[in-house]
Amino acid sequence: MAPKRGILERLDAGEVVIGDGGFVFALEKRGYVRAGPWTPEVNVQYPSAVKELHREFLRAGSDVMQTFTFYASDDKLGNRGNTAAQIGCQAINQAACDIAFEVANEGDALVCGGVCQTPTYLSGKGKEACQEEFMKQIEIFLKNDVDFLLAEYYEHVEEAEWAVESCKATGKPTAVSLCIGPQGDLHGIPTGECAVRLANAGADIIGINCHFGPDECIEACRLMKEALDAAGIKKHLMVQPLGYLTPDAGKQGFIDLPEFPFALEPRIMTRWDAHKFARDAYNAGIRFIGGCCGIEPYHIRAVAEELAQERGKLPKASEKHGQWGEGLRLHTKPWVRARARRAYWENLQPSSGRPFSSSMSKPNNWGVTAGDKDLIQHKETTTQEEMEAVINRATHKEEVVNGDN
Amino acid sequence: MAPKRGILERLDAGEVVIGDGGFVFALEKRGYVRAGPWTPEVNVQYPSAVKELHREFLRAGSDVMQTFTFYASDDKLGNRGNTAAQIGCQAINQAACDIAFEVANEGDALVCGGVCQTPTYLSGKGKEACQEEFMKQIEIFLKNDVDFLLAEYYEHVEEAEWAVESCKATGKPTAVSLCIGPQGDLHGIPTGECAVRLANAGADIIGINCHFGPDECIEACRLMKEALDAAGIKKHLMVQPLGYLTPDAGKQGFIDLPEFPFALEPRIMTRWDAHKFARDAYNAGIRFIGGCCGIEPYHIRAVAEELAQERGKLPKASEKHGQWGEGLRLHTKPWVRARARRAYWENLQPSSGRPFSSSMSKPNNWGVTAGDKDLIQHKETTTQEEMEAVINRATHKEEVVNGDN
Amino acid sequence: MAPKRGILERLDAGEVVIGDGGFVFALEKRGYVRAGPWTPEVNVQYPSAVKELHREFLRAGSDVMQTFTFYASDDKLGNRGNTAAQIGCQAINQAACDIAFEVANEGDALVCGGVCQTPTYLSGKGKEACQEEFMKQIEIFLKNDVDFLLAEYYEHVEEAEWAVESCKATGKPTAVSLCIGPQGDLHGIPTGECAVRLANAGADIIGINCHFGPDECIEACRLMKEALDAAGIKKHLMVQPLGYLTPDAGKQGFIDLPEFPFALEPRIMTRWDAHKFARDAYNAGIRFIGGCCGIEPYHIRAVAEELAQERGKLPKASEKHGQWGEGLRLHTKPWVRARARRAYWENLQPSSGRPFSSSMSKPNNWGVTAGDKDLIQHKETTTQEEMEAVINRATHKEEVVNGDN
Amino acid sequence: MAPKRGILERLDAGEVVIGDGGFVFALEKRGYVRAGPWTPEVNVQYPSAVKELHREFLRAGSDVMQTFTFYASDDKLGNRGNTAAQIGCQAINQAACDIAFEVANEGDALVCGGVCQTPTYLSGKGKEACQEEFMKQIEIFLKNDVDFLLAEYYEHVEEAEWAVESCKATGKPTAVSLCIGPQGDLHGIPTGECAVRLANAGADIIGINCHFGPDECIEACRLMKEALDAAGIKKHLMVQPLGYLTPDAGKQGFIDLPEFPFALEPRIMTRWDAHKFARDAYNAGIRFIGGCCGIEPYHIRAVAEELAQERGKLPKASEKHGQWGEGLRLHTKPWVRARARRAYWENLQPSSGRPFSSSMSKPNNWGVTAGDKDLIQHKETTTQEEMEAVINRATHKEEVVNGDN
Repeated sequence: MAPKRGILERLDAGEVVIGDGGFVFALEKRGYVRAGPWTPEVNVQYPSAVKELHREFLRAGSDVMQTFTFYASDDKLGNRGNTAAQIGCQAINQAACDIAFEVANEGDALVCGGVCQTPTYLSGKGKEACQEEFMKQIEIFLKNDVDFLLAEYYEHVEEAEWAVESCKATGKPTAVSLCIGPQGDLHGIPTGECAVRLANAGADIIGINCHFGPDECIEACRLMKEALDAAGIKKHLMVQPLGYLTPDAGKQGFIDLPEFPFALEPRIMTRWDAHKFARDAYNAGIRFIGGCCGIEPYHIRAVAEELAQERGKLPKASEKHGQWGEGLRLHTKPWVRARARRAYWENLQPSSGRPFSSSMSKPNNWGVTAGDKDLIQHKETTTQEEMEAVINRATHKEEVVNGDN
Repeated sequence: MAPKRGILERLDAGEVVIGDGGFVFALEKRGYVRAGPWTPEVNVQYPSAVKELHREFLRAGSDVMQTFTFYASDDKLGNRGNTAAQIGCQAINQAACDIAFEVANEGDALVCGGVCQTPTYLSGKGKEACQEEFMKQIEIFLKNDVDFLLAEYYEHVEEAEWAVESCKATGKPTAVSLCIGPQGDLHGIPTGECAVRLANAGADIIGINCHFGPDECIEACRLMKEALDAAGIKKHLMVQPLGYLTPDAGKQGFIDLPEFPFALEPRIMTRWDAHKFARDAYNAGIRFIGGCCGIEPYHIRAVAEELAQERGKLPKASEKHGQWGEGLRLHTKPWVRARARRAYWENLQPSSGRPFSSSMSKPNNWGVTAGDKDLIQHKETTTQEEMEAVINRATHKEEVVNGDN
Repeated sequence: MAPKRGILERLDAGEVVIGDGGFVFALEKRGYVRAGPWTPEVNVQYPSAVKELHREFLRAGSDVMQTFTFYASDDKLGNRGNTAAQIGCQAINQAACDIAFEVANEGDALVCGGVCQTPTYLSGKGKEACQEEFMKQIEIFLKNDVDFLLAEYYEHVEEAEWAVESCKATGKPTAVSLCIGPQGDLHGIPTGECAVRLANAGADIIGINCHFGPDECIEACRLMKEALDAAGIKKHLMVQPLGYLTPDAGKQGFIDLPEFPFALEPRIMTRWDAHKFARDAYNAGIRFIGGCCGIEPYHIRAVAEELAQERGKLPKASEKHGQWGEGLRLHTKPWVRARARRAYWENLQPSSGRPFSSSMSKPNNWGVTAGDKDLIQHKETTTQEEMEAVINRATHKEEVVNGDN
Repeated sequence: MAPKRGILERLDAGEVVIGDGGFVFALEKRGYVRAGPWTPEVNVQYPSAVKELHREFLRAGSDVMQTFTFYASDDKLGNRGNTAAQIGCQAINQAACDIAFEVANEGDALVCGGVCQTPTYLSGKGKEACQEEFMKQIEIFLKNDVDFLLAEYYEHVEEAEWAVESCKATGKPTAVSLCIGPQGDLHGIPTGECAVRLANAGADIIGINCHFGPDECIEACRLMKEALDAAGIKKHLMVQPLGYLTPDAGKQGFIDLPEFPFALEPRIMTRWDAHKFARDAYNAGIRFIGGCCGIEPYHIRAVAEELAQERGKLPKASEKHGQWGEGLRLHTKPWVRARARRAYWENLQPSSGRPFSSSMSKPNNWGVTAGDKDLIQHKETTTQEEMEAVINRATHKEEVVNGDN
């Protein structure tokens, strides 16, 4: 078998690289990841569940198998009483690599090692401590010889710069994505400026992931491109948004929305929303296009189908999917057969079935950022007293009047 | 190992039996089932994908592993150019039994063989022809000695009666569920009367599945119970609704909604909607409680968590799920920790993030039922002429004005 | 001048009689009526304001000038510190008659004297006391020789029967309308039975006004007609609904909706909603068609325009209104000229411009009816203690969570 | 009687001056103005109707009686077959002055002569021709010695400059307001730059009216203030927004919204929206605060009540209005009495009662501006051929799919 072409080789050639979707949220719904800590010990505990999801993304068109190592830093694995620390970063990352490589080699996908933000940074422990956390993870990736590294999900560009440095020092191609929107990072640094700083730190691919839906993420990437262009810097762009629509999100994105994380369903993108996302991202000059939380295999397939002509191929999973609803030609009911066409789905504004819901929410951002004592790494389980304090802070506002009052 | 207690033994003892969720829709999104024909040849083609989904439901609390044999009748496998006919009912059902038994035996679940409505009925070919289709499927179930049979997803009570007869003739306990709502079957037979007829045909467990969200399904079950009570008949009730909210559905349910099947996302139930469903179903006297299309493993887990006290146990997957959002106590952001409580989630009306969508749709029921030529079994692929005819019929209405016009 | 033809003469001939709209709400917005007590002392204080509104309805097509004597009973004029008692029923009713006659005689309209429900009834003071309140009002109407009497806005059929008796005893044609919906009166008497009782009490015209939007009012009238037909009784029907859409209202109608009375704007009917109402009412066999709170002159004009063919005439105010938007042919912008047609307006589902609002509310009916101490006539102003008690009762519910929380 | 203090005297002293609301839309609903041409011949035809509306605004707190002379230029009075040309600008303006002075003198209000944009400008006939149209109107205002002039409702700053010049030449204090939003005028000139140009043209008071709801108008004023400040220019600011919420409007404002002009009801501001508007405008440094189309007397009263402390007085109409719903203390039903408080109304998000409507619309701006042949003055009635052409242009778009399809 010929060696796989590398990530930069592909992007330099102008190809569209399709990422994968969100493991944390998908596996939470499948019963393998705990919402709250969101850590990936499932790699060790139930590897076949992780493998199945990787396979679904591969079939859907993903060119990259990102190791499921989100939040796998030792400081996070032990935060607020999380018992995943007993398994530890090393074992989790090794299991994640094993699985990613197995599935990647069932196709032509690359394996990417992912490293993300740490409680150490939020606790203000500084560069050296953060990079120590990063290196413990990166070592495993190096040992397994992953194809490239991805520093992703950083709310503060400063921490991302440190991560890029650590990744870049290995000699591997390095991608980086911030989980911020058009309003800048949580320290107030403009989105465009963040991109320039990450380029200067050595990143080869720069972009946005998570925290916002496709429109806001693409807008943030556009600001990044604008700033990079203005600085005369040429880098590849990547975008991996939420699978949720968040026109109403504030600076901290979907975490501030009242529906996070257990009532986001009405915001889930349809496959047609994913088509539009793929086209918009492509038109914005982005060539590494994937997804984050909420992006399921069928969304990735929709991305691959939308860009089939540009890529010269359809994904494997399209064997089970007629383009633009064409499979409905086989439906029993004639009025459903009449929906087997692009114009129908492209123009539909789907109803919610929820007459007591509004279309938008008001985010409840408390304006808390790095350094705030509420964010500091905290090994003990949250106590009842602490719970009462935050609940009180959440509800002790002016009376809220609505239909139930 | 002690033999498993049977379905009637459990229900007669007053226990709550939890069904599984929807295979067709879940596997379509995972890339293994084709929307339109909706047939289950994946059992033969990608058995591990089916096995993984069974396992997720088992972990979530399902007491029943229903063979994934939806629409596996030979007449449907070859309808409108569907190539699944080359695999055939026999091979599909055997593979489905193998998978269901393997996973069921990883726990204490029963295996149920499912038989559903046929194009043969819609083509008006009569009782004998229908029962021939049923028997080809049931033979495999008998050979594999499933624990009970389920005739499910019938729009016409008449066909369901024939199916019950065929099932009941095997000596196996027989459940039956219609995919109708409170307005009765598609021939206009009232929902309550349907129940009485099914009881008279010999069914042990009677209920509703698919086509409607939880509220409408429970209301239909309530009508069934009322009629059975009035007739002095005592049967077990079952309900397996959609995982979608459908307050605006007409007689044919979600198939008539403009969002079917590719834009139903905003209607997806949250886990809290599933809690409410489980409680409402329990309060309505229903003891076989599961789900159909759109019901994912986390919905079934929510049903099991809601009824944990009644059942005296939590499902395995609750190891990864704090009750009523309790896992959020471990979240980094304090305002998200403040959501780790029942009152928060129980009262939230989640926003859609879709300001251009309405809350309800108008169904486009064409009023077509069994016997209509548009519904008759049709071996050839739908032609372009046929497509143009239905599209024309769908769009040649008075001008529709909306925000895009 | 030939004498005007009477109300029964018109209805017996099968003509459509158009009522007027809502004075209380319109004059509240114009600055002349106080929301809360809703009493009509403006007749004495600012007669020209009342006259102008009558004129607008006359121009719009109203065949009836109903004296603006809503809530003009002495017990209501002095309720809870209301100072209108200093003016008194007699003076108010005389002024109202003067105005109504002046405007009626500018056209061919009839004058109708209106008598409505009393705190005396809610206080449980019995038939004699109630009828005493009615007679003080009716005497003025008799002195002024109104064309007919209308007992309107009764929540309890019993009190309406007493009012009908008092009206009928004068020898004047008597109409009666309840402010109830399809669920029956506040004592639980079915809507259809209410109609039969009112017919037996002697009413010539029977129907529904206020508390619900057009759909619910027409449905209530339909139930009345069904019951009258079943009893072999032939009476004329009338309907005068709110100018607000209330699909979510409970038994007590819009008073229970959280938006009552100061945030009903998003529910206001368009003129096209009024067209539909007029057609629906006509098709239901109702021939006295008007409006109540929220129905403005342009809504009445829309009713008259919808029924122009049946009535053989357009209203005077149509000189300033092109049918179905035809005036837009004169608009400067071409895309607005394109809206000068029926299909555009008839199909439009108007947006709210309110992304944080839901489409429906949950009524907060406290289930309080006649006899409850909270409803009893109460001469003193509501005290701060009483306010705190009701506010506490309103807000001391389980915590309500929404986007602001 | 002491002479009234002039507009600049009041504003220079830091007082809040309250304008009036919208005559065109209010009188259209009352049956006196024709939608489409929107011309004010009612002053001559039914003066008492105009007088009554002026009186309502005076009672509500308006300090300014603006002559109802909107679109009273001779070129507009005869556009597209409008028959108001037979009455003519001179007669209309004289009648409007008579009425405005009569009512103004019932209180302490000033009379302001209004001059607005012309078809002459849209037809590209140049400065001289436009100013000729302005002067015919202004002459009447001078003859009647109005207190100040207001050039209002200009979509193009160039035409507004010409109008300001004409007004200013009379020696009268001159106000000017554009009907544009934050996106600039229809020729693409930024909103802030427009303000500077109007200041340079000599305007004493500069601002925004019509076309957008309060939020967008205040934002546009903020941009104006920013630019004036940057240019070191000190002028008074004014804002008179729509009484409709238009978060979804594009550059041309509500005219582009599909609901314009006959289905705007769900967007109507509540009185509480008007409170918020008044406070926001005040906080933005605006001191001339009024309304335009859709702003009814009760909205102006709400503005006056919100700013009662700043102004040291309540309006006359507050005799009929308890602050923040206080009149509800006199309501019969206890749960309505519980709504007699600020927190209730301030936090309510009112429902629409329209489950088939979305919260936002997509504007259908055709991108047509001055000079386009579709906008040119056109004396003949629109022909059927012209209608078909615009309807065809409006509907010949890609198929629109919604719930009715």
